[in-house]
Amino acid sequence: MPNSDADLVRQKLAQARALLAEHDLDLWLTFVRETSLGRDPALDLIYPYDLTWQSAFLVTPESALAIVGRFDADNVRRLGAYDEVLGYDESIRPLLAESLKRLAPARIGVNVSADDPAADGLTVGLRQVLEAVLAEANVGPERLISAEAFLGRLRGRKTPAEVARIRRGIATTERLIAEVGERIRPGVREVDLAAYLHARLRELGLGTAWDKHFDPIVNTGPDSVPGHAAPSDLVVAPGHLVHLDFGVQQEGFCSDLQRMWYVPEPGETEPPPEVLRVWQAVRAALLAGAAALRPGAQGWEVDAAARAALTAHGLPEYRHAFGHHLGRVAHDGATILGPRWERYGRTPYGVVEAGNVFAIELGAPVEERGWVYLEENVLVTEEGVEWLSTPQEELWMAR
Amino acid sequence: MPNSDADLVRQKLAQARALLAEHDLDLWLTFVRETSLGRDPALDLIYPYDLTWQSAFLVTPESALAIVGRFDADNVRRLGAYDEVLGYDESIRPLLAESLKRLAPARIGVNVSADDPAADGLTVGLRQVLEAVLAEANVGPERLISAEAFLGRLRGRKTPAEVARIRRGIATTERLIAEVGERIRPGVREVDLAAYLHARLRELGLGTAWDKHFDPIVNTGPDSVPGHAAPSDLVVAPGHLVHLDFGVQQEGFCSDLQRMWYVPEPGETEPPPEVLRVWQAVRAALLAGAAALRPGAQGWEVDAAARAALTAHGLPEYRHAFGHHLGRVAHDGATILGPRWERYGRTPYGVVEAGNVFAIELGAPVEERGWVYLEENVLVTEEGVEWLSTPQEELWMAR
Repeated sequence: MPNSDADLVRQKLAQARALLAEHDLDLWLTFVRETSLGRDPALDLIYPYDLTWQSAFLVTPESALAIVGRFDADNVRRLGAYDEVLGYDESIRPLLAESLKRLAPARIGVNVSADDPAADGLTVGLRQVLEAVLAEANVGPERLISAEAFLGRLRGRKTPAEVARIRRGIATTERLIAEVGERIRPGVREVDLAAYLHARLRELGLGTAWDKHFDPIVNTGPDSVPGHAAPSDLVVAPGHLVHLDFGVQQEGFCSDLQRMWYVPEPGETEPPPEVLRVWQAVRAALLAGAAALRPGAQGWEVDAAARAALTAHGLPEYRHAFGHHLGRVAHDGATILGPRWERYGRTPYGVVEAGNVFAIELGAPVEERGWVYLEENVLVTEEGVEWLSTPQEELWMAR
Repeated sequence: MPNSDADLVRQKLAQARALLAEHDLDLWLTFVRETSLGRDPALDLIYPYDLTWQSAFLVTPESALAIVGRFDADNVRRLGAYDEVLGYDESIRPLLAESLKRLAPARIGVNVSADDPAADGLTVGLRQVLEAVLAEANVGPERLISAEAFLGRLRGRKTPAEVARIRRGIATTERLIAEVGERIRPGVREVDLAAYLHARLRELGLGTAWDKHFDPIVNTGPDSVPGHAAPSDLVVAPGHLVHLDFGVQQEGFCSDLQRMWYVPEPGETEPPPEVLRVWQAVRAALLAGAAALRPGAQGWEVDAAARAALTAHGLPEYRHAFGHHLGRVAHDGATILGPRWERYGRTPYGVVEAGNVFAIELGAPVEERGWVYLEENVLVTEEGVEWLSTPQEELWMAR
């Protein structure tokens, strides 16, 4: 267990304690079990390892308490981030009920949200167990309220240590993208380029930022459509646009970048005008979105700025959100920089804050050539965005 | 996406369709989103990749239907295991409501369980979303019932393809245990032995069976206590018992074995009598539990047989369950071969079935020497158990 994990958890717990008052919560309660089977995404913020038996993490403005099974207790103690760690053998109920009685919270935030998957880790069965314990402690179930807004802020406001890890992951990603770029040439298949990156990740002992079957996504030419699809046997050919969507997981944090190459026909020294036109429009729309990305903006407003810039160039609307938080996972929950579509629920209404890290992305098709898609990673500051990735400013020419 | 994944899912869907009638269910509904953030463990049985937007998998005795976001739809179609795959852009609700109306199920099994973590993947927020869709379809929420028993059987009855993957993972594990055994000698630290295995897993492109910080668990001597703790700087010394708890994840399935060595003092050619006495008692108790492990037995009865055999030798009771299912994760949910303690809920009352794969384990301390712990992996057949691991029959002598 690296010491830096302890620092990360301590910083996040301090942040959580301070945020409770802002959200009128007396207690934030995370209740989990067998996390290798199914993990509450909020747990990652305050305990980065797996737990076996039922485990409760109670954070109040004053202190942080963990109640866990005896075989897990030593690990939580060794992390050194909790003020108190209680271990049990046969049942968590007496210790948890007693702690709740002692703390006597009027408003208990739990990890429940219809809209934000990152704030919705409590399962229906565990909620039943929790309500039974609350009854033993004479705490009515009406005291349980959604911690959604609290968690969105806690997850979204990256600490300096978190941003440092993300930066290092992005640097690795850019290095690997440069390497794979050298290998893009006519005759190479999408799967070959993906296999190269997988082999390099294995050598480096790193993970992918999302499901390894679809990371990287590689698209060559007009028959290969960007999305979440696995790389195919399609072969790179002259005249193709080649698109890469790639992220790594390093030190527990993710990157998420999209990069573009054009594969010249014999004699071509630069991409054809119709390709450059779309390239420039996509890049301009990305910049328009980035310009709208500042503290106080609502997610949908940022999306709307990018979307409007793209369609102003006569290009079709992209069928997804312009941006998403980036952190321990590539889609890091909370505010979505996306349109007010039903499936996004209330998440496009979230407010951008300084300290947020976003992946921003959009693209458009070029007939008979493929797709132009770009994605950059940025940190929101009081003044606007700081680019964490090195923005791709020109369409790269493959060999 | 390997073809064998498709076979695995097809077999599991066929099994699920047949099991529905046995459990008086008209429909099994799995409802998920952003699975890289938090994954419903039941999804692994029927879709082994990640999904981004809200996604519904509807299995009836007649057919299997998937409703997923447009960017995921191609992947589900390519898997080739679903009769119908519907993609959507803005909202899953109309398609899901319409499908529920068409299927008109009276009893809908959902992944909710207070007792079995492997059957408790539906989150509280997603349940709210689901109830809103059900209301649109004029389906009352009382039609939603726990699929716990159904899922316990579905997960527990391993198909031949599943058992074959587990076997291959165990073979790898035993090979790596033999290698690390060659490296156990006075002066080596617990962390050195763990680092060796991690390096080998990386070379082989394999994962650990549980949290990599605690897999392997390595314990040398009396100051190192078996549990879920990370390997320490403790140094192997003559007179120590060395204990290894190690599992790999290979082809999506896990192994989970514990092995023992004794480190001789100068001149010793076999372990001292007090060590051998505990070794023999632990091994006898493991065999007593294995003998009780047959179709029709309840989980707690198997545990009681092993527990009684151990205490009959004057050794203390172990503070955990004798056995757990083994599969896509090391603790594979459903029936626990454990005591009727509160924290196990109803899981020790589950019934053992042919086709189940269990990890069985127990141990006891030896004063001033360390701990003796053993764990084997077995397949339950109509006749009793088939050993999937090569049982450790003698306490190994380190150099």
